[in-house]
Amino acid sequence: MTVLAQLQAALGSLVDIDPVSLDAARADRSGHAAAGTPIAIVHAETVAHVQQVMRIATATRTPVVVRGAGTGLAGAANAGEGEIVLSTARMTAILEVRSEDLLAVVEPGILNADLNAALAEHGVWWAPDPASRAISTVGGNIATGAGGLLCAKYGVVRDAVLAVDLVLADGRLMHLGHRSVKGVTGLDLASLVIGSEGTLGVIVGATLKLRRLVTGDVCTLAATFPDVRSAAAASAAVTASGVQPAIMELMDAASLAAVAELLALPAPAPGAAQLTVQTDGPAARAEAEAVAAVLRAHAGDVQVTTDHEEGERLLSIRRSMHPAMAALGTTLIEDVSVPRSAMPAMFDEIARIEREFGLTIPTIAHAGDGNLHPNFVFEGPETPDHVWAAADALFRAAIALGGTLTGEHGIGTLKSRWLAAEIGDDQWQLQREITRVFDPLGILNPGKVFHA
Amino acid sequence: MTVLAQLQAALGSLVDIDPVSLDAARADRSGHAAAGTPIAIVHAETVAHVQQVMRIATATRTPVVVRGAGTGLAGAANAGEGEIVLSTARMTAILEVRSEDLLAVVEPGILNADLNAALAEHGVWWAPDPASRAISTVGGNIATGAGGLLCAKYGVVRDAVLAVDLVLADGRLMHLGHRSVKGVTGLDLASLVIGSEGTLGVIVGATLKLRRLVTGDVCTLAATFPDVRSAAAASAAVTASGVQPAIMELMDAASLAAVAELLALPAPAPGAAQLTVQTDGPAARAEAEAVAAVLRAHAGDVQVTTDHEEGERLLSIRRSMHPAMAALGTTLIEDVSVPRSAMPAMFDEIARIEREFGLTIPTIAHAGDGNLHPNFVFEGPETPDHVWAAADALFRAAIALGGTLTGEHGIGTLKSRWLAAEIGDDQWQLQREITRVFDPLGILNPGKVFHA
Repeated sequence: MTVLAQLQAALGSLVDIDPVSLDAARADRSGHAAAGTPIAIVHAETVAHVQQVMRIATATRTPVVVRGAGTGLAGAANAGEGEIVLSTARMTAILEVRSEDLLAVVEPGILNADLNAALAEHGVWWAPDPASRAISTVGGNIATGAGGLLCAKYGVVRDAVLAVDLVLADGRLMHLGHRSVKGVTGLDLASLVIGSEGTLGVIVGATLKLRRLVTGDVCTLAATFPDVRSAAAASAAVTASGVQPAIMELMDAASLAAVAELLALPAPAPGAAQLTVQTDGPAARAEAEAVAAVLRAHAGDVQVTTDHEEGERLLSIRRSMHPAMAALGTTLIEDVSVPRSAMPAMFDEIARIEREFGLTIPTIAHAGDGNLHPNFVFEGPETPDHVWAAADALFRAAIALGGTLTGEHGIGTLKSRWLAAEIGDDQWQLQREITRVFDPLGILNPGKVFHA
Repeated sequence: MTVLAQLQAALGSLVDIDPVSLDAARADRSGHAAAGTPIAIVHAETVAHVQQVMRIATATRTPVVVRGAGTGLAGAANAGEGEIVLSTARMTAILEVRSEDLLAVVEPGILNADLNAALAEHGVWWAPDPASRAISTVGGNIATGAGGLLCAKYGVVRDAVLAVDLVLADGRLMHLGHRSVKGVTGLDLASLVIGSEGTLGVIVGATLKLRRLVTGDVCTLAATFPDVRSAAAASAAVTASGVQPAIMELMDAASLAAVAELLALPAPAPGAAQLTVQTDGPAARAEAEAVAAVLRAHAGDVQVTTDHEEGERLLSIRRSMHPAMAALGTTLIEDVSVPRSAMPAMFDEIARIEREFGLTIPTIAHAGDGNLHPNFVFEGPETPDHVWAAADALFRAAIALGGTLTGEHGIGTLKSRWLAAEIGDDQWQLQREITRVFDPLGILNPGKVFHA
């Protein structure tokens, strides 16, 4: 019996072979697609469904690509020829909300924004806030170790997951982690699963660490600077001043110009860069004043508002970045992260790479945590060689500044060839062997992350 | 050439075979000691020394027990017959403090309190604050995943380590983790090392995530309750109210009586329990008032002070717990942790176990995070069977309430026989196989954590 026939016999109408669905599963939001077409998509609705798929995959040694909403930016959920797509997008239940313990137990397919809407009724929230939060799943957020805008103040996914239920390659279910604030029983495998991009198992449930909703004002500041280096230096100075904004987003001149074009706004001054900062909580107003003083001392032209609508309008410029890039062509969105004080130096490196490769690289940054998204824009579906060469220079510059290849998007397929450059050959081999403990046959997301 | 001769040839006077030193390395602060006497203690002063020891250990297949200050409470650093003790206590350098990036790079042997004294000059601190902080090393804090009093508000070790330098069993040096706020390149091996209790490698360096020193008042509250259940319910109600104290410590009647005896204080009312709470930061006074209101609503007799000396005096009662227990006999300090709302139920379980086993179990708790330290006190060096039976009942009760065997002390030797009861046989095996990727010969801390 073929793999497809076995899946259909075991899982009936959950097995989807619609050519349109299969084609969609070849790509994520990176715009890059796997070669060939997967065997089928299984829309798992229960843990038992996931286990059945994995048992068939193990018995037949068939590769499995786990997929949530497909919003990744590194190709980790792209499925190709001969692979089973195991979707957990239908597993959307919130199994438990315990606001008195600041935890929730959820299935992996729930969208981040849907979860937070439900949690708000209990006076709590889950802090990870990737820009994709309206369309990305909690399981996907965990699998990629997603970040977002609020991380410097409210933490990353690693800080917000207590436990993970994981189905291994052979179908066994493991409960990893704990429900208590503290817990050091054995190795911390829940942390190991965070950011493992589908290489260790299928996340079928998670116990999330919640926060109480923040009360008090929200103040929004928008500041314009004559050039991007001034804006980067100003953001580093805000961090060094000891004030902790909730959000601190930087846009360079090319980014501002693209968004102005998309939104039909007046063209910004040539070369000008912008910082958008939000403070929140009981001290929001005092913090906003302190931030404004630092920005002005760094030649920033600052406006401040406590009005919600006006604040949203100022942030909407930043939020329009992805559609603005998409309007220009195919985009390769990079994701380097450096220590915060190295932000100005990283912008110098980007300017150098622009000159050396004759490219414009519109760049935005989560400036509060040193995470930059340089965008390479080009024509056609394939990333040209000179763009990869420029990306290579970018990665090496970030690593040389004490930074990393990827702050929040992951390695996937698009960055796997640089993984060893950051972690070294010895650690590459060690990590690969750890995946083999979970997945001895190598059927979980083969060719991703550790592709040689 | 014997192992000892090889060590002496390679490391000269760093090799210590003084019988007093060797005997001291057999035990930690749990009071339990390994059988037999180790071969030697090597006082490593550099990473290269650690690598030399591990190469000799690998070549000769000799077990290695890594040791910092020996303040553990689970026996993980106890070294016995035929083992090399590899001490990193002399590696005490602070290599880098970057207050603008909120990180420090340190060697593993520096004492937690010494580090924080040095960091204070830069306006920053490392939040993990085990009760042993004056005498325990940062490397040991990381190896055990140590907790402390401030965890509910300021996090555990897992939240405060960005990167770890690890020497593997074969002597290779690995740099795990990153220096930036965000970073998801490959598997999160830095997190895996936290709490691994010497089974994965030798921690020879760490990049720590710092916080800015907290400004504002510190308010201390001490509240007396008629019984321990009322005190536990009051602490759960504080957490549920949304106020986040910096410290919230609970002491039961037997603990209070023992401390009163030690400090020659008036005897407390029979059955009475106490909560000691501290609030800090800009809203400390308002939070203290809110906490006082909750405690009074739960029959607490509350006193509040903003005076530093008076606050320290109130907390000193809690801090005298360990010497008070030591004055009574040999102590087995347990370390269960439960979701915060389960605290009252866990105290009911302790009362049940006291009745069933005819024991008094003085118990203190980090009530803000649901971490309890029940103390079993007995005569002589060996834990009696009926105490182990009571401890077994305690562990099973904690697990049944959604909790864990150990919140912050680790598994070591003393809890290894219950590890599978919490994580299951399948996960036990998986974890054991992961240690074998780091340490194929099984020479790192054999018989600890995963002892069958």
